[in-house]
Amino acid sequence: MSNSPAPALRVAMIGTAFMGAMHSHAWRTAHRFFDLPLTPELAVIAGRNPESTAAAARKYGWAEASTDWREVIARDDIDLIDICTPGDTHREIALAALAAGKHVLCEKPLANSVAEAEEMTAAAEEAEARGVFSMCGFSYRRTPALTLARQLVAEGRLGTVRQVRAQYLQDWLSDENAPMTWRLDKTKSGSGSLGDIGAHIIDAAQFVTGTDIAGVSALLETFVTRRPVAGEHVGLGGSGATDGEYADVTVDDAALFTARFTDNTVGIFEATRFALGRKNAVRLEVNGTLGSLAFDFEDMNVLEFFDGTAPAHTQGFQRIIVTEPVHPYTANWWPAGHGLGYEHGFTHQVVDLVTAIGAGTAPSPSFAEALGVQRVLDAVERSSADHSTFTPVFR
Amino acid sequence: MSNSPAPALRVAMIGTAFMGAMHSHAWRTAHRFFDLPLTPELAVIAGRNPESTAAAARKYGWAEASTDWREVIARDDIDLIDICTPGDTHREIALAALAAGKHVLCEKPLANSVAEAEEMTAAAEEAEARGVFSMCGFSYRRTPALTLARQLVAEGRLGTVRQVRAQYLQDWLSDENAPMTWRLDKTKSGSGSLGDIGAHIIDAAQFVTGTDIAGVSALLETFVTRRPVAGEHVGLGGSGATDGEYADVTVDDAALFTARFTDNTVGIFEATRFALGRKNAVRLEVNGTLGSLAFDFEDMNVLEFFDGTAPAHTQGFQRIIVTEPVHPYTANWWPAGHGLGYEHGFTHQVVDLVTAIGAGTAPSPSFAEALGVQRVLDAVERSSADHSTFTPVFR
Amino acid sequence: MSNSPAPALRVAMIGTAFMGAMHSHAWRTAHRFFDLPLTPELAVIAGRNPESTAAAARKYGWAEASTDWREVIARDDIDLIDICTPGDTHREIALAALAAGKHVLCEKPLANSVAEAEEMTAAAEEAEARGVFSMCGFSYRRTPALTLARQLVAEGRLGTVRQVRAQYLQDWLSDENAPMTWRLDKTKSGSGSLGDIGAHIIDAAQFVTGTDIAGVSALLETFVTRRPVAGEHVGLGGSGATDGEYADVTVDDAALFTARFTDNTVGIFEATRFALGRKNAVRLEVNGTLGSLAFDFEDMNVLEFFDGTAPAHTQGFQRIIVTEPVHPYTANWWPAGHGLGYEHGFTHQVVDLVTAIGAGTAPSPSFAEALGVQRVLDAVERSSADHSTFTPVFR
Amino acid sequence: MSNSPAPALRVAMIGTAFMGAMHSHAWRTAHRFFDLPLTPELAVIAGRNPESTAAAARKYGWAEASTDWREVIARDDIDLIDICTPGDTHREIALAALAAGKHVLCEKPLANSVAEAEEMTAAAEEAEARGVFSMCGFSYRRTPALTLARQLVAEGRLGTVRQVRAQYLQDWLSDENAPMTWRLDKTKSGSGSLGDIGAHIIDAAQFVTGTDIAGVSALLETFVTRRPVAGEHVGLGGSGATDGEYADVTVDDAALFTARFTDNTVGIFEATRFALGRKNAVRLEVNGTLGSLAFDFEDMNVLEFFDGTAPAHTQGFQRIIVTEPVHPYTANWWPAGHGLGYEHGFTHQVVDLVTAIGAGTAPSPSFAEALGVQRVLDAVERSSADHSTFTPVFR
Repeated sequence: MSNSPAPALRVAMIGTAFMGAMHSHAWRTAHRFFDLPLTPELAVIAGRNPESTAAAARKYGWAEASTDWREVIARDDIDLIDICTPGDTHREIALAALAAGKHVLCEKPLANSVAEAEEMTAAAEEAEARGVFSMCGFSYRRTPALTLARQLVAEGRLGTVRQVRAQYLQDWLSDENAPMTWRLDKTKSGSGSLGDIGAHIIDAAQFVTGTDIAGVSALLETFVTRRPVAGEHVGLGGSGATDGEYADVTVDDAALFTARFTDNTVGIFEATRFALGRKNAVRLEVNGTLGSLAFDFEDMNVLEFFDGTAPAHTQGFQRIIVTEPVHPYTANWWPAGHGLGYEHGFTHQVVDLVTAIGAGTAPSPSFAEALGVQRVLDAVERSSADHSTFTPVFR
Repeated sequence: MSNSPAPALRVAMIGTAFMGAMHSHAWRTAHRFFDLPLTPELAVIAGRNPESTAAAARKYGWAEASTDWREVIARDDIDLIDICTPGDTHREIALAALAAGKHVLCEKPLANSVAEAEEMTAAAEEAEARGVFSMCGFSYRRTPALTLARQLVAEGRLGTVRQVRAQYLQDWLSDENAPMTWRLDKTKSGSGSLGDIGAHIIDAAQFVTGTDIAGVSALLETFVTRRPVAGEHVGLGGSGATDGEYADVTVDDAALFTARFTDNTVGIFEATRFALGRKNAVRLEVNGTLGSLAFDFEDMNVLEFFDGTAPAHTQGFQRIIVTEPVHPYTANWWPAGHGLGYEHGFTHQVVDLVTAIGAGTAPSPSFAEALGVQRVLDAVERSSADHSTFTPVFR
Repeated sequence: MSNSPAPALRVAMIGTAFMGAMHSHAWRTAHRFFDLPLTPELAVIAGRNPESTAAAARKYGWAEASTDWREVIARDDIDLIDICTPGDTHREIALAALAAGKHVLCEKPLANSVAEAEEMTAAAEEAEARGVFSMCGFSYRRTPALTLARQLVAEGRLGTVRQVRAQYLQDWLSDENAPMTWRLDKTKSGSGSLGDIGAHIIDAAQFVTGTDIAGVSALLETFVTRRPVAGEHVGLGGSGATDGEYADVTVDDAALFTARFTDNTVGIFEATRFALGRKNAVRLEVNGTLGSLAFDFEDMNVLEFFDGTAPAHTQGFQRIIVTEPVHPYTANWWPAGHGLGYEHGFTHQVVDLVTAIGAGTAPSPSFAEALGVQRVLDAVERSSADHSTFTPVFR
Repeated sequence: MSNSPAPALRVAMIGTAFMGAMHSHAWRTAHRFFDLPLTPELAVIAGRNPESTAAAARKYGWAEASTDWREVIARDDIDLIDICTPGDTHREIALAALAAGKHVLCEKPLANSVAEAEEMTAAAEEAEARGVFSMCGFSYRRTPALTLARQLVAEGRLGTVRQVRAQYLQDWLSDENAPMTWRLDKTKSGSGSLGDIGAHIIDAAQFVTGTDIAGVSALLETFVTRRPVAGEHVGLGGSGATDGEYADVTVDDAALFTARFTDNTVGIFEATRFALGRKNAVRLEVNGTLGSLAFDFEDMNVLEFFDGTAPAHTQGFQRIIVTEPVHPYTANWWPAGHGLGYEHGFTHQVVDLVTAIGAGTAPSPSFAEALGVQRVLDAVERSSADHSTFTPVFR
């Protein structure tokens, strides 16, 4: 432990729902376990409703509450804007924040369209030249097992990657009476399973393999086309409304696609919120010429690694419990085997972001990387609309 | 145990390689554990090479060896022809056998083309009218866990099926120096991973859900385009040849596709022999409105079942060890938990085939069902050749 | 979220090592996710060394640092003392705190001997009459899966419990060159694996079954009798010292015992820090006449439940992912399937302790319950010293 | 495949129940997949009841049936006696067979008492000097995963073994209305869970570690002391009787013990038929200074191996699917990943026995090895009767 406290990094967060609670936790916690060059201060939280925003400030530990995010961005005493709102507002907030010289952390997906994401990326690159940094919140990358997966590929332990299979399986919409939420309204969310959870496995696949998807052939399906408009769906952001009403679901319930990567790797992807019994199965398997990897977030502290160069009679998938001091991030937490949870990915995101800002280097994933994901989402939608025909990802 | 022995069913087998050894085991074993209406007799085995066929007869327990399958089919004292040869010979042998009034068991895939399969199906249906029966060897259906899966769907335990995800992952071709075999020669095998192992998961998906694939969007990939021509690849049928030679691989190494079923179910399929570390992972997951199923042949005695109607606080995938007396086939084998192996599917195939013949009823899967699989294989190849465009299965 | 902040509960913590960091996290976090009747304030942290205690205060978020725990206890503005020191100091600190009218949270094991634990329990019971409450930190009880396990037994879902098998397997001492720590010095730690980790599975078994161990037959073994005295062992509390020195290990490395419970249940227990490859495998299986339970902390978000009353053909251990809103504690955290980590048990401990204090009711596990565990530890040591002869637990 | 058939080994089997069916399968099958120096012939099966023995002969493929095992042993044309009867008859049959110069395969446990086992061992050793060989049927040793486990220990991959934990968990007696069988009658079976299934894990532990148990501290428990006398319990040998009657259970339902081995290894063992939901969980974990092993028969084709010498960041239990050509026995069966079942251990037992007889070498496990297991069973019973006091195994 160092003896002098690090200078402050004053943070303002826009958004008060589930992701707001999570990000608040990360901002409160990161410097308690990691040595950071700057100490995050939870300065202001901004939301629409004065009462709920004030309550959120108190609950989550923010010094002030505001109902005017523009005013917050205009303040001189704020260093970083953390955007935790639905995707339709990301562009406007991010552009304003970057213009005002604030660092930006933006939840994923970066935007609801490629055009928005391109504009944001251009602004971020311009800001970076001024020493103002941006990051998109693909937090699963910071799950230690997935960080280790990337490390093993980079070390060459898999040889040349040939195949990727990725699934993100949830079931919280399987019940056809589960209520309408903003996540099922295309004007707010951009897309359904595709952008909400498919984006995560696209990012994970590109991050772990270190290569990009070049084209896709996709099928999108909506199983339940109308849903009751009725209050909150626990923890995932419903909207209050009158009973008895129904609203149209305007997004995909399941997104399935095959893919070719720029380097001849082939992949197969599925994102669905209708896989009854699967709660948060973010699954990634990668097969190379020398080894393979397998990950499932439902057993998030484990990475399975098959070493094809081991003696033949003891080859087998190794169940690595990724909690050893030698593993990414974990030396700062508990003893080996004392597992981490979902929130640690967010805390590590803060750690890496603040460390990069302190060092004056660009954090990753950049807006440009997130734009890359957005372009894959776009290609998936175009392919689906064109009889699943193979559709290149525009670059 | 009954007191009077059942009358004989005299069997002739064409083919002496891996599948021949397996089928011989099933013919020797079925009546030792099940009460059959007819007692199989291993009458004749036919192959090309006199020495190796004679050795196979002795090793596998066949009374006679022959190098002329036409002569075998012509014999009056043979009741059933079991076809265990590569796919390019299925049509000719099956048509001859059916014409001669012999029951036929034919290994999968039924043929190397839809046209062949249609001709065989027509012949089988014509023969069935004469009391001559046919069956195609999709043996995985008779793995008790998959038979139970079908039973649970049929009982309505899954409600309406919405999604299927199926994988058949092997790795025996991952090594680019693994030798050329007939399985990699399109003229002999018809296709690669697609027909060899993809056919199994197509059949399993259609069998378990009780519905058919209506169209596909597919991607086929060949990772290793030339291989050394050099002797036997253990257990999977290589061909002897001179060292130093190379031959072109003319089939797919991996087959990936998305699918729509006739009843709005969507599916995603992958067959590959390059998934390093996966040895025989025949995986099927089915999600319905009330429940889900998951199976992996690498843990073949287990079926996982999620019951969405159970009390909320104890819901979870149930790991059913499918070895109880109440489960399909298993009462005739060992006590609970004393697992079965790969060969039991083949023995159960003989049990069901002989039972159907004895009862004068048509066994399943019929040639018509196998033709259904062949048509999906065909649609996959056409889609792959047409930029992955969604391609209907011709019916 | 409530609108008025709850009154403060001013906490002082004694101890600055691994458990201090963990408890600090829990005190900082509990009210951020749960509605508590009192809001914890991290008032003072006490340790021996002025510099490291000041650094710990800053790092962990305590307002003040002190090197005199007696002085801290004497302060009027402190409501609760949290004891995170080695076991040899628990008695003295707890007695002083209770005498001063402070609530006490004491890490496990409660003490290093039954006599100490009895004295502490007497003091706690006397204090409780004055409205001053005590709790012992068996945090694993608050892992949601184990809390659910207790709930299922209490609901009768297991019928009559017949058998318990419990293991606590770690491997951090497997390397014979791992350094000496206070945990291997009987004068500081009381015992080795037995008290450090065996205590946890004794508590878990008694908590989940709701019954007590009546007698044991035990075997204690020390595999490595001398260790280098050399600096810190990561995260588990070594002591700095000169290289080249060796010290005697004076505790057990592995503790194995069979047990009879007061109600005819039989059990089998093993605690070891030499199970190479097992990192933190806290395992509990309970078999009853109607159902069974299985838990392994290496997959801490899962409880396996076998329902012997389910239809025979679908019986199987159900893998319950204990993250649903209906499960203990989890509604306050993330969406289903977004797993919790090791620290959550400690946060829940604070939640339950503060809730009980706020309600003026006694929290659990009480010192009396912890004394019950201590008596089992004592019986284990006596049995081991007496040729493993069955030895009653004194009550 | 060899061209000349091997000379015959004429086998007679005493016993017609579950183990008779299993052994018959092994005798019919071994030479179909392995090259044996002698070809087994199923000459005679002997049982008490003429009708059921004749039916068994027909069903299992024996040429003749007999109701007089003494007469069978007296025949000149029989080479080997396979004893599949309850334990109370093993001694008499084995002594007679050895005296008559027949090789003997005797089911486990070798006998119902140490005295019997000693007499049998003396006879076997005397016979061996005459070229007449004996083997005891601890078939689990021949599960490829356990054979590989032994091989890895012998190769030094575990270093020095420190700890063993073994469980044999079944649940077929959990229902208190499950009927009385000879297995619950001490006069027939010798003991309950202890000898029936505990013997298997004792043998497995001694076989895999290559060392012997030196002493034990044990607890035996009978949960259900009276059972209905009512017909067959599927597959596990009930006895027909009148409804309404009850009989006393005179054996242990669960056997729990800790153990010291001759080389300072410590072990913990549990055998029970009351672990509801566990069907045939033969579990063995071995921890050494360099590596660990774990096996569970419910996933019988898998051995888990932890290599403590691997790079720290990829250490983890390797899930070895023991079906590769390099693994014990498996090259003679199916391709990799196409699992084996329970019966293969018995077939391998025949393979190894016939191979040894052909080579004129003593097969293993010998009667002496089985006597070693018997002596452990005896020590367990003596310890349990003596307040669980540590009790040396007489050698």
